[in-house]
Amino acid sequence: MRVTAIAPSNIAFIKYWGKKDEILRLPANTSISMNLSNLNTTTTVEFSKDFENDSVEINKSTTDAPRVIKFIDIIRKRANIIGKVKIVSENNFPTAGGLASSASGFAALTVAATTAAGLRLSEKELSILARIGSGSASRSIPDGFVEWHEGDSSDTSYAESLYPADYWDIADVIAIIDEGKKDVPSTEGHKSAQSSIFFPDRMKNINNKIKNIKEAIRKKDFPQFGEIIEAEALEMHAVMLTSVPPLIYWQPATIRLMREVINWRREGLSVYFTIDAGPHLHLICQKKDERNVTKRLILIEEVEKTVINSPSAGARIITATSGF
Amino acid sequence: MRVTAIAPSNIAFIKYWGKKDEILRLPANTSISMNLSNLNTTTTVEFSKDFENDSVEINKSTTDAPRVIKFIDIIRKRANIIGKVKIVSENNFPTAGGLASSASGFAALTVAATTAAGLRLSEKELSILARIGSGSASRSIPDGFVEWHEGDSSDTSYAESLYPADYWDIADVIAIIDEGKKDVPSTEGHKSAQSSIFFPDRMKNINNKIKNIKEAIRKKDFPQFGEIIEAEALEMHAVMLTSVPPLIYWQPATIRLMREVINWRREGLSVYFTIDAGPHLHLICQKKDERNVTKRLILIEEVEKTVINSPSAGARIITATSGF
Repeated sequence: MRVTAIAPSNIAFIKYWGKKDEILRLPANTSISMNLSNLNTTTTVEFSKDFENDSVEINKSTTDAPRVIKFIDIIRKRANIIGKVKIVSENNFPTAGGLASSASGFAALTVAATTAAGLRLSEKELSILARIGSGSASRSIPDGFVEWHEGDSSDTSYAESLYPADYWDIADVIAIIDEGKKDVPSTEGHKSAQSSIFFPDRMKNINNKIKNIKEAIRKKDFPQFGEIIEAEALEMHAVMLTSVPPLIYWQPATIRLMREVINWRREGLSVYFTIDAGPHLHLICQKKDERNVTKRLILIEEVEKTVINSPSAGARIITATSGF
Repeated sequence: MRVTAIAPSNIAFIKYWGKKDEILRLPANTSISMNLSNLNTTTTVEFSKDFENDSVEINKSTTDAPRVIKFIDIIRKRANIIGKVKIVSENNFPTAGGLASSASGFAALTVAATTAAGLRLSEKELSILARIGSGSASRSIPDGFVEWHEGDSSDTSYAESLYPADYWDIADVIAIIDEGKKDVPSTEGHKSAQSSIFFPDRMKNINNKIKNIKEAIRKKDFPQFGEIIEAEALEMHAVMLTSVPPLIYWQPATIRLMREVINWRREGLSVYFTIDAGPHLHLICQKKDERNVTKRLILIEEVEKTVINSPSAGARIITATSGF
């Protein structure tokens, strides 16, 4: 069977930073995210004994991708198949620029590859499997607003939908600052989280944050929600800055935009920022304000591109074609 | 008597951020600094019963300066004099741009005013008194490389010289980014330090840092010293960023320069940064590298001005003229 799946990237409001188990990618804490409608990966997977080799093509380039093949091996073993795999994957956004391409990539791969291998997995099982590929990919499996339970074992660390995509009309307007590769891949960065003297205090406080943000989402209290996400982004970057050695993901334009967002809010525009392990700003606003936010962003010289996202469904199959 | 004193600003390598006593300005922790040869305040003080009013002139402008007059009242009371005061003070650098003008200002004022009032105070007493004016002013009283003991009472919280100015040939090349007033005066900022969830962990760890940096200075181990000061600056800013509300002192050019310094180091130039409660970078290097550092800095568009400092003596009297 040849199966094509699409999966969204996601933006974490309460971040995943640091792992408690490196191999299983068990996160140090529960995280909360929203799937993004306009950052996605489309992946086609086909297994066949006729293929001579495993092959992986990402964004029209053939690549070695040992991490992908290792992941496919888990699926082959579970499905008890021996055919070689052919994977063709495409992001509609730049890879590894701090835009969570591994989240959408491994989520799409998980759905396409398990289906192509003849497995029938539940959403929970898909989320667990995607997590083993890339932690945040677990959050790109379910729909809309998502909670990834940290769990204490592989079977208990999975994401599920809190609310569907149409629950709350908010937007994530991404201001893309620099399309280059990031300095430190987040897999490396995660390992250094524990080297910050502030990490234990972050962990002590995080369940309280999770509780508060879920409450803000439940009530659709946008300013309360916004304040939590902005403080959370700064907290994660404070941990990064105090890691040994320090991780500085920000660029000059990151600071410029942070200051602009705070100023715009003083002017009455209800917009808040969050920042992942990269230089780009995600400007979170209500749907009614997304055009105003975008208009302001494109006037800023350092903003290369904006991408407007609404909440999105999770990973899903687009086409499945029998190879026979 | 009319007395003119000069005092240097200082750069803290281990920072003072947060107080344990607001009124007495007892700092939350011990700090370590170096006096700066080219950022200073020159202040002339005269007491006379012939003056109709207290008057304060700072940088050629007459000003109300209630904080200064309150400080003078302490001195008048201690010296048991009733004459009005005339103060003329001048910085050779912009006021309140995150360049510690209150440190040099209150240190020069302390020395000039106590002498003009007929008091004869020891260096320790001067440091204690300067601290009551502005915390970091206590460090501008003694010479060279300075430790300000946090203390647990007014009498035990004072600075003393660790080494004289000529002990170690290092330089502080300040990259001045924006000469405007800073967003949050540091007196306000200090109050928010405790609102960061990371502040307690910073405090738990700081005496260890003090021990390590004193050891690096003792051994004149420049790379070890540099790594400590850079991590310390990032740690203080991590506390600021996680305060409620967040304090963002950085400007875009601050990040640009941080990244440049790290790159220059990769190229083999031994230079480290520290940052106070403001946007400017202090590039700390060995004397032999100060021209190279400065040459690189002036090529950067966002750097308005550089100021090259060597270690300096502390506050001292320049002239004392009998008024009779």
